[in-house]
This record gives sequence, C-alpha cells and structure tokens, in this order.
Amino acid sequence: MAVNSPLPVAADLKPVAGIELGYAEAGIKKPNRKDVLVMKLAEGATVAGVFTKNRFCAAPVQVSKANLEAVKGGGKAIRALVVNTGNANAGTGEPGLQNAQATCAEVARLLGLDAQQVLPFSTGVILEPLPVQKIVAGLPAAIANLKADNWFNAAEAIMTTDTQPKAASLTTTIGGHTVTMTGISKGAGMIKPNMATMLGYLAFDAKVAQPVLDELVKYAADRSFNSITIDGDTSTNDSFILVATGAGSLVVDSTDSADYAALRDAVTGISRHLAQQIIRDGEGATKFITITVEQGRDIEECRKIAYAIAHSPLVKTAFFASDPNLGRILAAIGYAGVDDLDTAKLDLYLDDVLVAKAGGRNPDYKEEDGQRVMKKAEILVRVVLARGEADATVWTCDLSHDYVSINADYRS
Amino acid sequence: MAVNSPLPVAADLKPVAGIELGYAEAGIKKPNRKDVLVMKLAEGATVAGVFTKNRFCAAPVQVSKANLEAVKGGGKAIRALVVNTGNANAGTGEPGLQNAQATCAEVARLLGLDAQQVLPFSTGVILEPLPVQKIVAGLPAAIANLKADNWFNAAEAIMTTDTQPKAASLTTTIGGHTVTMTGISKGAGMIKPNMATMLGYLAFDAKVAQPVLDELVKYAADRSFNSITIDGDTSTNDSFILVATGAGSLVVDSTDSADYAALRDAVTGISRHLAQQIIRDGEGATKFITITVEQGRDIEECRKIAYAIAHSPLVKTAFFASDPNLGRILAAIGYAGVDDLDTAKLDLYLDDVLVAKAGGRNPDYKEEDGQRVMKKAEILVRVVLARGEADATVWTCDLSHDYVSINADYRS
Repeated sequence: MAVNSPLPVAADLKPVAGIELGYAEAGIKKPNRKDVLVMKLAEGATVAGVFTKNRFCAAPVQVSKANLEAVKGGGKAIRALVVNTGNANAGTGEPGLQNAQATCAEVARLLGLDAQQVLPFSTGVILEPLPVQKIVAGLPAAIANLKADNWFNAAEAIMTTDTQPKAASLTTTIGGHTVTMTGISKGAGMIKPNMATMLGYLAFDAKVAQPVLDELVKYAADRSFNSITIDGDTSTNDSFILVATGAGSLVVDSTDSADYAALRDAVTGISRHLAQQIIRDGEGATKFITITVEQGRDIEECRKIAYAIAHSPLVKTAFFASDPNLGRILAAIGYAGVDDLDTAKLDLYLDDVLVAKAGGRNPDYKEEDGQRVMKKAEILVRVVLARGEADATVWTCDLSHDYVSINADYRS
Repeated sequence: MAVNSPLPVAADLKPVAGIELGYAEAGIKKPNRKDVLVMKLAEGATVAGVFTKNRFCAAPVQVSKANLEAVKGGGKAIRALVVNTGNANAGTGEPGLQNAQATCAEVARLLGLDAQQVLPFSTGVILEPLPVQKIVAGLPAAIANLKADNWFNAAEAIMTTDTQPKAASLTTTIGGHTVTMTGISKGAGMIKPNMATMLGYLAFDAKVAQPVLDELVKYAADRSFNSITIDGDTSTNDSFILVATGAGSLVVDSTDSADYAALRDAVTGISRHLAQQIIRDGEGATKFITITVEQGRDIEECRKIAYAIAHSPLVKTAFFASDPNLGRILAAIGYAGVDDLDTAKLDLYLDDVLVAKAGGRNPDYKEEDGQRVMKKAEILVRVVLARGEADATVWTCDLSHDYVSINADYRS
C-alpha cells in the first residue's frame, strides 16, 4: 500500500484542451488489463522530453528521441504518443527498432499522420521481443475511445508493478490566463532510480515555443523525477514528457518572463507531486523519506551525498525496521565520494533531532528521540555540511521484505 | 548458511613463526563471546595495510594509519595488533580517538612496547561510545593466552554477523625457502562493499622490506578484498593487514625478483580465498556470483560495469529467485557510467549460455538454458565488450529476504 498517497479521484483530473486519451486491453502480457494508451495532440502543440541515460536505452526511447529531433530540424510536429505496458522493447536490437517504428506507423495510419509525428513508449520486461501484432490489433479500440476526460483510465493503462494509478491536476492563473495542467506517472525511474520503468506525461494548455519547452522539461525533471530513487537502478525506458497543447490563451515565447517563471513553478510543483507518488508507491515501500543536504559547496556534492544515503541498503533496511541505527547514515555520507569532506564540521538531523554534531554523536542525543522519528511514516534526514551555500533534496523509500518478494517474483 | 564454504579446520591453520594470537571474552556487547583479539609480532616483522576510503573512517583506522606512517618516518616497528568487536568506534569524534589510543597504550604497557607500536581495530555498531574499560579489562586474559596456534580462535574472535569463522593457510616453497602463511577475515567490506566491516589479517614468515610490503598489500587487496561486494556500502572500519614476520629464511628486498612474484601470487591467492569466504557468507547469501567483464578499453571501465551489475538490487533479487530475468543485467551495464559504450557490440554469457549477442537477445537463446544456470549456487556472468584488451572480475552474492531480516534486526 502506498505511503500516505490517496488514490487519485477521476473527477479531479481536469481535461486539458488539445489532448485526448484512449486506451485498449490488448492482452500484451496478461488479458483483461489496460495495456495500450494513445494520446492525440491538437495541431499547434509542442512536445519536449527527458529520457533515460542508460546506454541500453530501449528501442522506443531511440525512436522518440529521433522523432523529437526531427521536429527541431524542421519536420512536422508531434501529434500523438503511444504507450504499451507488458514489454519494454529493450535489448531487442534491430527488430526492436522496427517494431517501435511499426507501432508508430500504425498509429499514424489510423490518425492520418506521418509515422515521425508519433512518439512510442514501452514498459515491462527487458530482452523479450515486442508482441507488436497485439499492440497493432489493440490500436483501433484505443483510438475509438479517445476522450479529453480519460486521464484516470490513462493512469491505469500505464501501470506495471504500481499498486495504484498516479495522477495530478491543477488549474492556475498566469498573466491573467487560466492554465489547466494534468499529468500521470508510473513505475519508478529516471537517471538514478528504477525498479520498473518511470514514465511521466504532463500536459497543459498554454502555447509554448519549442526551445522554451525544452528548457522547462529539464528544469522540472531535475527537481522532480531526477530527484527520486527507489533502488538506484536506472531503467532502459525512463521518459518524462511535457506537452504544451497551445489550446489555451497563455503564450510563452521566452524563458525571460514572469509568465515563464510562473508556468515553470507550476509545472515543477505538479511534476514533483507525480514523482513523489512513485516513491510513495515504491515496491514494498513503508516509509517516505526526504533527504536534504545543505550548505554544500555545490549542488553536485549535495546530490552525491543525498543519493549515497538514499541508495544504501543498510540505511534503507534500518528505516524499514524503524531502528535508529544512524551510524549507517554517517557511513553512507563518508563513502559518497566527496573526497575532501571535513566530517568534523558536519551535523546530522533526523526531523528536528540533532543526532550527530561536528562529526560525532551529539552528547544530548537520546536513543528514544531517534526512535520516535524512525517510527514515523514520513521522515526528514537533514545533513548540514557547513562549507558552502548549495543544497539538494532527494526523495526515497525504505527497503522491505516486500521489495525482495516483488522483484523475485516479477515475471511469474 | 554460507554458500559452498566448508568450516575451516583448526588443525589445518598452520602457526606462522613470529606471530602469536590471544583472545578474551570482554563482554563488550554480549557476554560469553570472544570479542577481543591481540596479535603479538616478533622483532623484525614488517606490517602494511590498506584501509577504508570512507571519509568517516573510524578512530582506530585513523590511529592505525598514523602509527604505520610513523614507522615509515623512522619510528619503532609495529609489534602488536588489537581488535575488538561489538563496537566500531566510528562517528565518535575526539573521545573516540582517545579511546583507541588508550587501548593501544594498555596493550603496549602489558607487552613492554610504546603505544605507537600497536595498531588498533574495531568493528560493530557505529556512533556509539567505545566501552574502553571493558576492552582494557579483557586485555590481560588475551595476552595470557597468546599462542602461535590460536588462528581458529582468532577467526572466531573477530566475527560479528558472520555465520562462521573465515580462515586459510598454506605452506609453499619460494626460491628454495619454505614459507608458511595463515590469514583470517570477517564481515564484508572494502572500498565498495560492506554490510558490516571487512577485516582481514594475513601473516607469513618471510622477511620483507617495508616498501615491498606496501606494494604487495595494494596488489593483493585490489585482486581480493577490493573486488568483492555485498551491498555496495563501504564501512568506516574496513582494513586489510599484511604481516611479514621475518622469522623464516626467505628475504624479499625488491619487487623486481622472481621470489617477489612468487610471494605476491601466493599472498594474492590466499587473500582472494579469504575475500571470497566473506561473499559466500554474505548476509542472507544463497548464491555466489562471479562477474567478469572482458575486452574493455581499460580495467576501470570493466570494474564500473562489473560493480553496476553486482550492486543492482534488481539483478540480485533475480539471482535469489533463480529467475533468468536477464534484461536486468543489460540495464545495469547500460547505466554503469561508460558513456561511449557501444551496446551493439556487446555479448552477455551466463556460464556457457550466450544470452545476448551484439546487444540484443541471442536468437538461439532459450529460457530453459538461462533457467538451468540460474538455479545453480555458483554462477558466472561474463560480459564481452569487444573494444579492448582489459578485463576485471568482481565477486558478489544475491539479495534475499534474509538480508533484509538480518539488517533490520542488527542491533536487537
């Protein structure tokens, strides 16, 4: 069960003018399960993405990146996205690329587009051939039920080991214009994390120039999907896509404006919410942990330390056990790779409890204070380096028996 | 239960002339348990060590490094080592250093040495004050039972979460001289690994000049204790110590000799055996996995890829489940950080089974072949990069329910 993460309510997920969503049950891995999603975009929409850095990036990631590049090179705009679960189409070589392209071609044929105007996405088991015939057979049904208010179904259609759909929506006013944005996410991945694949799609109805959207997607990803981790594995398929449908009245042509800043902050906020839902529903998660590293020399070293803590199996099992075995956090800080770190200046807090002071145990620290915090479902780990002004925050979960069970049984 | 790792037999552990070992039950954390070990070295012995790179390195590590440096600066030779379990004396600040020094001073007083001639070691819980009075109180008993044939007891005295003592011994002939070497190890750590602390001590009766021994300890560590990993955590206390007692007839003054090469290979072999015993007895381990990465441009990239595979919780849980979900290995290779890796050239073998060929699934690969290998207790993962002549090997174990149980209960 996800940690403090109520199920999204379908009625709260606002339609975004300029995007319609349709799903199908194509029986890719299991029958009677939504496993294909098509998103159709209005003319005038712009699309930008951030993708896994895994060298074994999946065939659909390669095709999506190439198709987005083609737009920048003067090609026709992206007008549709297609997602399948049940198979990652990764480690599949040349046949995998052909299958991803065949999927795009079929979506394009049904919607009257060119294949290059379609971005494909896959998530599921790696190293197995994509059952492209099943996807193709499912596409007409997905396209037949394209609707603007299908976001909840869409969130369900992209689930794999997720225990619940993930979605968020908001309406805000920017420069006098109403902007509606709705997004969905699944799995857990991106740069660091992944137990399955992380996918995130966020659409809003402003009109945003391509270079501005390219900037925005990186900014939002760094502060959301790129700041979460479950187990340190980075998937072959992780993708985060922003769609600016252009159907609303707000127009943003430059990153140098108050409108951009407001849009950026709204997009970042909702992206973070979508990313945190992934952690709250991490495989076997029983705790939601925020790790903040403060007063570092630069963001890079703060992130190194935050991720070292977040990835340590010893730290994660201690959280699972609610055991304030906090020396494990110091050990993780120590091996994070910040070679000139002066541990004698470092303070460590667990929520409001000062555990380690100036690199050693705080003389006033009492085990029962640590125990009290460790028992909570939401815990803040705060590391103060006292050597600069940079900071970074990473969100993670604990490592439980259920994590092992889920991943030892994944394919069965 | 350790994977294919028979219990050492006390009678097989040969005394090494020039070193005596004595233990005590000092009640540091639990009563009726060997938890203090003293090793007394003959005059003329040389000592060299490799220590954790953790920035929060423990007080005893700091003192041991300083005392070894003092010898190089012309100080008196190291003549004793003292080890306690039950407390790591790490994250303990200035009082921790004083406690480590007080332990050395007491050993020195009892043996008629200077405090700087003693190297201290601790392993156990981090961030708790060292109960130095208990150690001091236990020292006379340890010194009273100093014996040359106490290696098995010594191996028991340094255990923490180990399920069995770890030791190895051999006699060999080098340049016409008989050389006897015996070593012990515990825990699992060093550079990458650690679930507890890795400690290793290996003594032999050759006479080896200090610079030669310094070189030898690094060479052997890189090919043994620095090539294992259980969970990617690096302890605050990891240490590997070589003692050349000088009591035998072999003298090695230079690394540029056939005698050195023979000694180096013997030391490396036994060190590897001691290191592998740690993996075989890894917390919750049910499989012993050898990961070899071949035909890389340099050792560094081979090690990066081997460690990425070895640390992936997804790969490790798949091994635990005997599930040939081998795409997870490709994913780990892909995110190992070798940015220009051409995955289209890469082959992946599981024992003799060619799983992935030229970056994609081998068309001849059958799931039952993968399954057959995954069911074994000892598995070889072989990655062929086809871009150079370097290779590297790392040893690891799987990630099981018992790993979570052990680490969630460690302090209770």
